[in-house]
Amino acid sequence: MSRKIAIGKIALLLASLAEEELDYFRPTLKELSFCQGKVGSMNMQKVISAVETAAKRNGIIHESLYRETHALYHAILEAIKGVTRDQPAIGEMSRTVGLRFSVVRGAPYANEAEGEWISVAFYGTIGAPVKGLEHETIGLGINHI
Amino acid sequence: MSRKIAIGKIALLLASLAEEELDYFRPTLKELSFCQGKVGSMNMQKVISAVETAAKRNGIIHESLYRETHALYHAILEAIKGVTRDQPAIGEMSRTVGLRFSVVRGAPYANEAEGEWISVAFYGTIGAPVKGLEHETIGLGINHI
Amino acid sequence: MSRKIAIGKIALLLASLAEEELDYFRPTLKELSFCQGKVGSMNMQKVISAVETAAKRNGIIHESLYRETHALYHAILEAIKGVTRDQPAIGEMSRTVGLRFSVVRGAPYANEAEGEWISVAFYGTIGAPVKGLEHETIGLGINHI
Amino acid sequence: MSRKIAIGKIALLLASLAEEELDYFRPTLKELSFCQGKVGSMNMQKVISAVETAAKRNGIIHESLYRETHALYHAILEAIKGVTRDQPAIGEMSRTVGLRFSVVRGAPYANEAEGEWISVAFYGTIGAPVKGLEHETIGLGINHI
Amino acid sequence: MSRKIAIGKIALLLASLAEEELDYFRPTLKELSFCQGKVGSMNMQKVISAVETAAKRNGIIHESLYRETHALYHAILEAIKGVTRDQPAIGEMSRTVGLRFSVVRGAPYANEAEGEWISVAFYGTIGAPVKGLEHETIGLGINHI
Amino acid sequence: MSRKIAIGKIALLLASLAEEELDYFRPTLKELSFCQGKVGSMNMQKVISAVETAAKRNGIIHESLYRETHALYHAILEAIKGVTRDQPAIGEMSRTVGLRFSVVRGAPYANEAEGEWISVAFYGTIGAPVKGLEHETIGLGINHI
Repeated sequence: MSRKIAIGKIALLLASLAEEELDYFRPTLKELSFCQGKVGSMNMQKVISAVETAAKRNGIIHESLYRETHALYHAILEAIKGVTRDQPAIGEMSRTVGLRFSVVRGAPYANEAEGEWISVAFYGTIGAPVKGLEHETIGLGINHI
Repeated sequence: MSRKIAIGKIALLLASLAEEELDYFRPTLKELSFCQGKVGSMNMQKVISAVETAAKRNGIIHESLYRETHALYHAILEAIKGVTRDQPAIGEMSRTVGLRFSVVRGAPYANEAEGEWISVAFYGTIGAPVKGLEHETIGLGINHI
Repeated sequence: MSRKIAIGKIALLLASLAEEELDYFRPTLKELSFCQGKVGSMNMQKVISAVETAAKRNGIIHESLYRETHALYHAILEAIKGVTRDQPAIGEMSRTVGLRFSVVRGAPYANEAEGEWISVAFYGTIGAPVKGLEHETIGLGINHI
Repeated sequence: MSRKIAIGKIALLLASLAEEELDYFRPTLKELSFCQGKVGSMNMQKVISAVETAAKRNGIIHESLYRETHALYHAILEAIKGVTRDQPAIGEMSRTVGLRFSVVRGAPYANEAEGEWISVAFYGTIGAPVKGLEHETIGLGINHI
Repeated sequence: MSRKIAIGKIALLLASLAEEELDYFRPTLKELSFCQGKVGSMNMQKVISAVETAAKRNGIIHESLYRETHALYHAILEAIKGVTRDQPAIGEMSRTVGLRFSVVRGAPYANEAEGEWISVAFYGTIGAPVKGLEHETIGLGINHI
Repeated sequence: MSRKIAIGKIALLLASLAEEELDYFRPTLKELSFCQGKVGSMNMQKVISAVETAAKRNGIIHESLYRETHALYHAILEAIKGVTRDQPAIGEMSRTVGLRFSVVRGAPYANEAEGEWISVAFYGTIGAPVKGLEHETIGLGINHI
């Protein structure tokens, strides 16, 4: 069961690379369904909401199907754990985040029966709620859908 | 305090891109001290050890200085949390990892007084201890050194 | 030291079964002190409060004794961990819960010196703050009192 | 989207009730695919393995499909968090568990498009590795499959 | 309900002060039941065991009563969380600890009905399994008994 | 690399001892840079803020240098984990804290190249938001700076 497309790596590049840096990877992007977005907040609910709204608006997941919402939610949660590297809290812990994110949906496995999977990636900064007192952060979550 | 070099993004690209995909980023790499490695295990201690040994052998950190070991250890730990997205355990939870990693040391901030920082990135797979039953995973940790 | 009464199982049945489904278990209930309640919220403090208030109003714990409040609080906290299956947060993580709960107090061990223990159980749903986008969840906490 | 069958409650009853106590619920069981088992250990890997093996042997999940293994693994992990009510470790924390478990697969939602879901339940004891120094514990995990 | 004796502070001083530094606090110690010990390990089970054995041998808790074992276990676990400041693992995370510990039992509240409580304190070092690559660490757990 | 000054123990004594109890330790305090403060809250952000403000106002850390803010923040976070002994939340979990704290900066190692380290200690009470329903709590965090 060799992997066909690394949807996690693609999600991460979509979240972290500049437009011109992505050129090399354009051919792979054509085989996938994806969206990109930005969110800056001290409120985790807003971060989660931003990704969910983007995924629904761009048709990456089916808005009214709970099984798709459930798959996406857990992928977001896992990506957030990479971002916070501790309990998934920001404002409560006096931190703020400025993140670019992406959601990628596709069939990563050669075996067709493995079906579709979804990946969520974040790249940006986390730090004190003071401009400049921050460092980079990354997170990736993957789930079957 | 604008960021000069995104050592987190660079660490991540070093861990996740193929040699030819890295070409675009070679100029930035020249300003940094870094190393790369691989580790596959169900034992977290081996994963930690592989990164520490590579960082010391390649002179990224000063072998006998505890403050450097301490900075690296916490960066590794934070990167591992992105990889496991739950308590940092693998074998105990019946999981195995196959990871490429990188350690990057440099001055990411324009203000010279901010000094050196270290970043650790992992990219690879996590899954059941059966070939193919696995998906991608990523982790990044950053610390002042 | 054989167990006399499974106060955890009883608490769980009280929280999850319908009135008529409980009939089989009525004889055991007579040996125990218990209360039942309901709470729906995105705010964990309200969930904790609902259980504490019910336990005090129904005389399950002694209102002004800290050692009883302390025993109950930790049993609630452990039950909540089963409900959230991650850090014990709901609204902050964009989740809502609709729960039935029970608190049971009794002597579960044959050896009288083991004294009284308390158990807290939750059963209901957890999910997105949208009707229907939710699945079942359960939690149980037990403590000596 | 009203729920059709509470696969979580059913899983829990299968894990916690005695044969005769289950009689009332037999009609519902006929609509579901499920298995039951037992495991006692200080080793979490053995607990996970026992559930995975039972689910595969009884055809609850498709042995060679990673998406089914992945769905089951995360349901097990969530159920374990209810059991340990802290980091999911047993032997390392000087604890032992004696558990009955069940795996239930079915369509819990009235909307057919929601498809199949899986639930894993544990019921038993957790405590010191000394006979009798233990109390009840419960866990439930649910996932789309 | 004013506190009569700060059993947590006393436990911590017993674990961290040298014999001569403790002189000032001797009068308070006479009102309490306590024991002291040492443990160095990469194995958390040994740390837990060392405290449990010391508490039983010195008659701080009643060896065969589960409710006392349960109260002590949870106090140890909470103290360990202060020591590790992350998931309670040492060897698995490539760390070792060298700890002095104490267990104190007494009535900390003016209201007699609050009865006895137990506190466990650790003080020592945590670090890489290499002499000197370590820093101080402290932990305190308190429970009703 | 023998330790020269136990900055963790000193921080803890500064947070937990009364003025007259500290007399014995005055000579050591002269070699260190430190500050003390108090904070009572159900809001973790206020606890973090109180320590950061005190450390900056007293010149323990350099206000505008991110690497010093970063070192302090992680030391605070680790100390908080000892205080809460669970996920670092207070009000959300229906708890309140009343804490004395201290921040100590100094060179704890004999080897001069190990440079300066910072330690943060908390001592006080944690409990229900009702006067008296609380017990002692302690936390310590240490980082290189």
